[in-house]
Amino acid sequence: MKKIGVVGGGQLGQMLALAGIPLGLEFIFLEPSADACAARLGRQIAAEYDDIEGLERLAVETDLVTFEFENFPVQAARHLATLTDLAPGVRALDVAQDRLNEKALFRELDIPVADFAAIDSQDDLDKAVTRLGLPAVLKTRRLGYDGKGQKVLRTRADAEGAFEELGAVPLILESFVPFNRELSLIAVRGRDGECRFYPVAENIHINGILHLSRPRLHDFMQEQAQTHARRVLESLDYVGALGFEFFQVDDYLLANEIAPRVHNTGHWTIEGAVTSQFENHLRAVLGLPLGATAALAHAAMVNFIGEMPAIEPVLHLPGARWHDYHKDPRPGRKVGHVTLLSDSPRRLEQQIAQVEALMR
Amino acid sequence: MKKIGVVGGGQLGQMLALAGIPLGLEFIFLEPSADACAARLGRQIAAEYDDIEGLERLAVETDLVTFEFENFPVQAARHLATLTDLAPGVRALDVAQDRLNEKALFRELDIPVADFAAIDSQDDLDKAVTRLGLPAVLKTRRLGYDGKGQKVLRTRADAEGAFEELGAVPLILESFVPFNRELSLIAVRGRDGECRFYPVAENIHINGILHLSRPRLHDFMQEQAQTHARRVLESLDYVGALGFEFFQVDDYLLANEIAPRVHNTGHWTIEGAVTSQFENHLRAVLGLPLGATAALAHAAMVNFIGEMPAIEPVLHLPGARWHDYHKDPRPGRKVGHVTLLSDSPRRLEQQIAQVEALMR
Repeated sequence: MKKIGVVGGGQLGQMLALAGIPLGLEFIFLEPSADACAARLGRQIAAEYDDIEGLERLAVETDLVTFEFENFPVQAARHLATLTDLAPGVRALDVAQDRLNEKALFRELDIPVADFAAIDSQDDLDKAVTRLGLPAVLKTRRLGYDGKGQKVLRTRADAEGAFEELGAVPLILESFVPFNRELSLIAVRGRDGECRFYPVAENIHINGILHLSRPRLHDFMQEQAQTHARRVLESLDYVGALGFEFFQVDDYLLANEIAPRVHNTGHWTIEGAVTSQFENHLRAVLGLPLGATAALAHAAMVNFIGEMPAIEPVLHLPGARWHDYHKDPRPGRKVGHVTLLSDSPRRLEQQIAQVEALMR
Repeated sequence: MKKIGVVGGGQLGQMLALAGIPLGLEFIFLEPSADACAARLGRQIAAEYDDIEGLERLAVETDLVTFEFENFPVQAARHLATLTDLAPGVRALDVAQDRLNEKALFRELDIPVADFAAIDSQDDLDKAVTRLGLPAVLKTRRLGYDGKGQKVLRTRADAEGAFEELGAVPLILESFVPFNRELSLIAVRGRDGECRFYPVAENIHINGILHLSRPRLHDFMQEQAQTHARRVLESLDYVGALGFEFFQVDDYLLANEIAPRVHNTGHWTIEGAVTSQFENHLRAVLGLPLGATAALAHAAMVNFIGEMPAIEPVLHLPGARWHDYHKDPRPGRKVGHVTLLSDSPRRLEQQIAQVEALMR
């Protein structure tokens, strides 16, 4: 029986373990929180993610290590990779943790990106605003997620003092491109280099947090997304699942960001695809054959933010599948989601509207 | 967060917990074995199934109790039912544990059964052989499973001393009816009396142990099976999932037996149906709305008996989903299964043949 180490112990770890236990796997989570939701599905090493002793125990007690969040400190990851097999690799973390590295990689791989500039001072910002024009989005290069560490600049006045406002840390200014849709692609690459892709998902964020994700079967952007993702996977010699977010501008895609892990916009695959992103991530890191990524039905996923709604009215919807992360309610926190399945796109839209009504 | 008590801690308990954790549930298993595979997914009360103290702890520490095997002693179940909410109820256990009670219930409900006779002595047996004719199957009334406690009588000579041979315990002689197919139906009934049914499955047993189970979408026996199952569910005021095994003889069904629990022939529902039998069992006992039972694809399930085959060649099949029960290998033991999914019945048959070839 293989033992898998996971850095992080949140809901992604929980869902990895739920997919991995039927594969005959055991899990150990490196996670400082006392109430980590994944811990019930395995053992927990209660230590910080960069705790040397914790990392060493994780390496010794498992056959290989993966991570479920992209802010696992690169220094710690680099140390861990000297002790055990770490997948996806350190390079993917290094790229994904810094928006400037990410954008530079996209450019290097000829993947279209919105115009951007590195910002290390208010002076840099003033010059970049002149060059890129407005509106533009100012973001911290590191540790931003769910819309945190961002400011939209619409006027020159918005830019004044914005460098200080975002903490006087390394920033990036990105040209704001009006887009038609936010799309994401879950890609997975095996140890033998085989790549598989799920149908792209169309996403809606509210207050910077993912609200709704709908896989689009046979979307005309599918191939373009796959071409871009394949370049990234191969360039990073990537192993595992990767979430890739795009903006669609008319008939082309602009790369927004990558997450070197299973991804919220792929949760629909648990029941909506032949093989879930969680199982395929595990198959990839274990060197097992990847599973089919085809959709089994029309599906949609709605996140529960802050608190779970009442379960009963949601489960009255015919194709609803409930996912409770066993987390305490807290504003802005992802505490669960529901997947909706239907053989009819129209009935699926009705179910989405019904779930949204129940969340108010 | 609701706490569910489960009597038994085998693979059915493991799969119940894998389905229930996303529903926000916690599990406590009453199970004497030190290596119970379900225990990793919850807590274990290590005690015999009829241990009064263990039962009382289970009742106190959980919100309701269910069971994952039908040989939970009725006396113990009756005691437990005075302490907590037990579902399915004691009556279902009482009927299912004794083949004579089972057959009597079927008769009472006008559900066709093969002719049978109660056997409490060799003399009873001799008379019954004369009345029923041969071939016939002699079975222990209680505690038989996976073909254990059975003897096929083809000649008068086979009957000689057979009462002693099967332990001189209460037996039943059943007329052997040549049948076309073994079919089973997974039925589920909610607390409000709502019944749902999965597509019937066609089953193949080898040496009395289930080998292959294939749901048949739109089978012409579906309605007949549902009619019979509904009568049983309503008669027992049943709550939860129930497995119902039939023999198809030309255009009618003979009832063989019921299992008052989730059932091996319903494992394909984990990935092959909108809602699995495990989730629907939990929804039923919790009084939640039942989920859709429609199939998402053509599916088949192949049991792994004795030991797991090598994982890699099986996962090379495009729609294969692996289920390892984390059990030590042992001849005749169910240690895992694989579900095969396909959008084409023909490709599904090819995949079944490929799995069977890998198991040799």
